[in-house]
Amino acid sequence: MKKKVNKTKPKTARKREIIESKPEKVKISKQGLDGFFKAENLALIGASHEINKIGNVLFKNLIKTKTVFPVNPNIDVIMNRHSFKSVLEIEDKIDMAIIAVKAELVPEVVEQCGKKKIKNVLIISSGFAEAGNEKLNEKLKNCLEKYDIKCIGPNCLGIYDAYSDLDAIFLTQQRLKRPTQGKISFISQSGALGGALLGTMADRKIGISKFVSYGNAINLNECDYLEYLGNDPETSVICVYVEQIKDGKRFLEIGKKVAKEKPIIVLKGGMTEKGNKAAMSHTGSLAGDARIYSGILKQIGAIQVDNLEDLFSVANLFDKFYELKKKIKGKKIQVITNGGGYGIICADQIEKNKLELGELSSATVAKMKKFMPTFANIGNPMDLMGDVTNERYRLALDACLDDANIDLVLLVVLYQTPLINQDLVEIISQAQKSMKKPIVIVMNNNEFEESIKETLEEKEAVVFEFPEDAVRAIQKFLR
Amino acid sequence: MKKKVNKTKPKTARKREIIESKPEKVKISKQGLDGFFKAENLALIGASHEINKIGNVLFKNLIKTKTVFPVNPNIDVIMNRHSFKSVLEIEDKIDMAIIAVKAELVPEVVEQCGKKKIKNVLIISSGFAEAGNEKLNEKLKNCLEKYDIKCIGPNCLGIYDAYSDLDAIFLTQQRLKRPTQGKISFISQSGALGGALLGTMADRKIGISKFVSYGNAINLNECDYLEYLGNDPETSVICVYVEQIKDGKRFLEIGKKVAKEKPIIVLKGGMTEKGNKAAMSHTGSLAGDARIYSGILKQIGAIQVDNLEDLFSVANLFDKFYELKKKIKGKKIQVITNGGGYGIICADQIEKNKLELGELSSATVAKMKKFMPTFANIGNPMDLMGDVTNERYRLALDACLDDANIDLVLLVVLYQTPLINQDLVEIISQAQKSMKKPIVIVMNNNEFEESIKETLEEKEAVVFEFPEDAVRAIQKFLR
Repeated sequence: MKKKVNKTKPKTARKREIIESKPEKVKISKQGLDGFFKAENLALIGASHEINKIGNVLFKNLIKTKTVFPVNPNIDVIMNRHSFKSVLEIEDKIDMAIIAVKAELVPEVVEQCGKKKIKNVLIISSGFAEAGNEKLNEKLKNCLEKYDIKCIGPNCLGIYDAYSDLDAIFLTQQRLKRPTQGKISFISQSGALGGALLGTMADRKIGISKFVSYGNAINLNECDYLEYLGNDPETSVICVYVEQIKDGKRFLEIGKKVAKEKPIIVLKGGMTEKGNKAAMSHTGSLAGDARIYSGILKQIGAIQVDNLEDLFSVANLFDKFYELKKKIKGKKIQVITNGGGYGIICADQIEKNKLELGELSSATVAKMKKFMPTFANIGNPMDLMGDVTNERYRLALDACLDDANIDLVLLVVLYQTPLINQDLVEIISQAQKSMKKPIVIVMNNNEFEESIKETLEEKEAVVFEFPEDAVRAIQKFLR
Repeated sequence: MKKKVNKTKPKTARKREIIESKPEKVKISKQGLDGFFKAENLALIGASHEINKIGNVLFKNLIKTKTVFPVNPNIDVIMNRHSFKSVLEIEDKIDMAIIAVKAELVPEVVEQCGKKKIKNVLIISSGFAEAGNEKLNEKLKNCLEKYDIKCIGPNCLGIYDAYSDLDAIFLTQQRLKRPTQGKISFISQSGALGGALLGTMADRKIGISKFVSYGNAINLNECDYLEYLGNDPETSVICVYVEQIKDGKRFLEIGKKVAKEKPIIVLKGGMTEKGNKAAMSHTGSLAGDARIYSGILKQIGAIQVDNLEDLFSVANLFDKFYELKKKIKGKKIQVITNGGGYGIICADQIEKNKLELGELSSATVAKMKKFMPTFANIGNPMDLMGDVTNERYRLALDACLDDANIDLVLLVVLYQTPLINQDLVEIISQAQKSMKKPIVIVMNNNEFEESIKETLEEKEAVVFEFPEDAVRAIQKFLR
């Protein structure tokens, strides 16, 4: 990184700052970001009593679990609490300051944080590099350096930790449900994408460990978060949405180490010229050459996905079948279906995605023959026919899970056929619990199926609406 | 088609049949299939009083709107109605017979239909070519020829006509909701796929005209349905799921004619070797070489989609913007978003799908500047920022719809941001009603957004959960 200095100040002042400032590259120890994620005493600079203001939403989210000191020089009381004029007025030690004031005021309040010896600041405010405001950006950077402050942001959504119960996200819990505790952590340069994924996870009953939206990455960047999560015992799967990798060499180095232990799933924004240009005005990032990025991700051993849906689905597969994944050797899929056309679509997608249709052992075929109409074809796809019952599904599932020729079962369940009912959920759930092989379900998502799907998801099943999305995710999962 | 004869009969009998039989190729006049879709007097052969049996479900669905004569020699009464021993006992004229008996019995009851001068039979029963039962298949074929009977099926789900209120589908209305009247018709070789699409259409408030699941296509085939729907004033958009095209030359000829008038959207099952093999045991189809099929579809001017989701989404776009489509000249998309990351993802997908990001006129940019934060970048994607209000969305939408440089608006609405609310639905709906340009919406589909999405769909909006699915569908739509 090239060292830049604040050009608005006279030379002597600049010089002093440079001497005082620590090296720009932030060093992260194992506990390096615990100061953010495990913070208990917080200052919220820009706390507001006006409903829907960022400083109000944050305040409400934070006070549920943490000790929060609201800072706002223009008011005296916020929700019955004393409002401080500045952090310097607060007597207690502050683990992290969260800043949500106008961009122009940010360097000044960071200066105060520095004086108060606050070492971790989360800056929500936007209007810096992404808005072409380089001058302000430099001023903030210098200020952070001067006091050796670690900073998440600016121009971000905030952070979340399901284990320490820290909710420093400026979206209301009413509009954006938070996921429960789980093993996926998510590093997102974009707040909106992060928010969307959080909401989808909550909705689909997928747990989270930590979430960080880091925006412009003025000092801490994706490498720091990756390193921290790599060492985090509460994280097993790491999802990343990134527009720009700031330090390719360090990312490669850390990424390689982390990917050996934990799957890293990456969606890179700005892979095209137009997307790249858009990234520039979003987080001030130069998104760079797509091939170089793909190369880096491949070298690391990260799983690169092409779209938002896959980022979510692949993470979900790793979440549910994390232990099982280590045991899977091949990529032989068995399709079980009660609709022939779905079997064909699945087979097409499996071949297209360079996966294999497994060949059932003769024992499995013989076992199944007894329970199928005489003219039924017991193969792969295995069509259980329109007169399929819960019991026939159970037999098929058990047989395929026990068959050494199969690595994963793709289970199509069309609730249109009359002889299956809600009890099938329990059968699938039991098969899932046996954890012999991953089971991936394809099911329509219409009125009749909605509650069934929800129950399945509560029971830790992975459910897709369309076969093509399921197979694409399986391909990334088994790769 | 090669003429085949029933090899089980003595030569003389065979000869007589050949002389008696009409030419095998079924000729369809404009009203050719009205005998099926507009049938009022129906015989249901294999009607059943046992709940969940196909013959019972069909009976319940049909009697709501039609005159149905149940035929079942083993019982006297079905749901308080007299059950006939055979169609020959029925005195009334029968427009269509629906057959749901064991495969072995089918030729015999078709023979009886022939004697009763029934010209249209819909055979639900399976167990013919798809089960390797060639002998039975030939027998049925000969019988149909002998009496010059048009046949849909065998091995199919049935047919549906929202205009004549004919529900000859063997799935319960409870499990599979039927769509309302609309302009999309759907020809599906697979019953399960057809059923799934019907359910999704009903759920997403998309209307249907006619639906036919035609299974093995023993005499009527995809060409006949395509020709009929091409002439059908109640159909504007035709969706096709096909595994095998039986008569490529005729399909080409009819397809070319129809595609000039109406968009034909085709999903071809069995595009890969494995899928092809699966198709053989599904509907007895040899799915053939993928490139040849793609070539035929291209020559026709059909829109080939690669997956089930796109079949549905592209049809939905044509349904909603059918008239507008004729006026669109280019493929310049304007992205409006309240989440920067979503803008980048959209831009990436737009470039990947060879669409263009339009360049707003300077007038539009000037108009928008007044209502945006000073540092906001008014471009494409247009990021309305996290503090976006309903009003700012309205201004942006109106400006882009009036801008001659833009062909279609891709509108991302993330309800996480606090200052927009349900009233935005009305703003979008008004913009949609103006029908200046197609508006395609991307919105999360979580708890908070669910009812909003439903209201939008009731108001004829097209809503996607993920940007990549939206852009892929737009690409096929604007192609």
